Amino acid sequence: MHPTLIVGSVAFDTLHIGGKCHTKVLGGSATYASIAATHFGPVQLVGVVGRDFPDTATRLLRDRGVDLAGLEVTDGETFHWEGRYSDDLSSRETLRTDLNVFADFRPKIPSTFRSTPFVMLGNIDPALQMEVLEQITRPKLVLADTMNLWIDIRRDELCELCKRVDVLVLNDEEARQLTDEKNLVVAARALHALGPKTVIIKKGEHGALLLQGQDVFSLPALPLADVADPTGAGDTFAGALMGFLARSGDISSANLRRAVVYGSVLASFCVQGVSTSRIANATAEDVLARYNEFQRLTSF
Amino acid sequence: MHPTLIVGSVAFDTLHIGGKCHTKVLGGSATYASIAATHFGPVQLVGVVGRDFPDTATRLLRDRGVDLAGLEVTDGETFHWEGRYSDDLSSRETLRTDLNVFADFRPKIPSTFRSTPFVMLGNIDPALQMEVLEQITRPKLVLADTMNLWIDIRRDELCELCKRVDVLVLNDEEARQLTDEKNLVVAARALHALGPKTVIIKKGEHGALLLQGQDVFSLPALPLADVADPTGAGDTFAGALMGFLARSGDISSANLRRAVVYGSVLASFCVQGVSTSRIANATAEDVLARYNEFQRLTSF
Repeated sequence: MHPTLIVGSVAFDTLHIGGKCHTKVLGGSATYASIAATHFGPVQLVGVVGRDFPDTATRLLRDRGVDLAGLEVTDGETFHWEGRYSDDLSSRETLRTDLNVFADFRPKIPSTFRSTPFVMLGNIDPALQMEVLEQITRPKLVLADTMNLWIDIRRDELCELCKRVDVLVLNDEEARQLTDEKNLVVAARALHALGPKTVIIKKGEHGALLLQGQDVFSLPALPLADVADPTGAGDTFAGALMGFLARSGDISSANLRRAVVYGSVLASFCVQGVSTSRIANATAEDVLARYNEFQRLTSF
Repeated sequence: MHPTLIVGSVAFDTLHIGGKCHTKVLGGSATYASIAATHFGPVQLVGVVGRDFPDTATRLLRDRGVDLAGLEVTDGETFHWEGRYSDDLSSRETLRTDLNVFADFRPKIPSTFRSTPFVMLGNIDPALQMEVLEQITRPKLVLADTMNLWIDIRRDELCELCKRVDVLVLNDEEARQLTDEKNLVVAARALHALGPKTVIIKKGEHGALLLQGQDVFSLPALPLADVADPTGAGDTFAGALMGFLARSGDISSANLRRAVVYGSVLASFCVQGVSTSRIANATAEDVLARYNEFQRLTSF
């Protein structure tokens, strides 16, 4: 069992969903990904928070097996994002982004984390993702997540990063945007050409595609009647996927398919609770039962 | 091996796709469904065409094993639809609809077709779909397809029809529209409450959902780099699904899952050619190879 190194944001989110407001709940790409990955093994988190970050949150992470040696605490306030979801939860608008201490974040990888074989570069500026790669020895597997913002304002840096990434994770719109190709199969070919041998395209309620050249795996999402909060589902997906790969140490194509299923298992729990509540309290039995539910959902 | 009775439209389509115009190519819900179903067994078609319907088209259908005893030929011109697809083929606008002889269509089921056990009510006015049910003895399985137009202008008739339908097929937007529920799982429950024990929700490039109460099957679509023409994919899906069920005579839940896969197999061929070209020339080997491709696409 290997640990997973996860670099990303640690944040407070204020969420307006279905007429309710959830004020300053725990959020951030590294937070969601780390909690998801701890279902499979130990996690090393690298991020930054302000002095206002509560002990309850650090305790939650530590109790789940997250090594916080790389969590910087600096003067100022923690990154805070506020957003409002549409009624059908299919889209959201940003009401407010206070970068706070995150504005000057430069990831510093503790020496004990530098040879960790499984590395997840959570969704942050690709220039910072590259700085992480500069500080570590060549790992067994590097996964990078990204978003439309970086495609807009850091396209060159993102393309440079892609040369050194094994698994690129992005959503369908971002895949189209980065490659300027409307057809997802053609877009995936263009993404392969940028460097990553493995491309994972997240499609939200429509599932996920895993592409490795001609080898394509498509997994539908679990149809859920009770979606409470979609925030962090993508980060959760990638974190669980990496945690599972790190536990098994097996990066074969067959095992990557299983990793996509475990990613989707944790993502399905994620959306059923507000903030990280459901991924933090899901048991090993819950995770196994839902893996079997994906088997029943897809087998013929 | 049972025959499949298919009632629906037989038409000419003029299609504007990717800068090209395909003038008066073969179209219509019964046409696509019938050709798809003949991959599995004999078909009995009920529809109407005008005097302009060419011998080449009737010969194509007859050569594939479609019994045309129920295809009325009346004075006037064949139904003609003209539409333009968006560049990414995700949407289309109707440029022209000439109902012609279809305007007065009243389905007349030949006596030799009245006890056929597998019946597909293709996408036509639900009042006409009901007239078909009035003319036949209780079949083993009735499938009804529909569209947004009938939900708009024939909602009561459609709900009445649903009481007598075993399998309701519609797309995700239509499922939401008919039930006024945004969540598809909740919408499916409401559709079950209308009557159909089996609900199939088509999601285009995102695949299809088969719901029978708590038993849910989700199949992604085959990711294709070469989509030529999406017209008729839904009719093709339903036709192949019914043809497969009729061949096996098995309407168990497990066999319905396989039927959804065969429906998706033929739908994937459908979109790769303009009009019915690709579903008409696909061989038994092509169909089997693509079924296996769906296995590889989805297994973990």
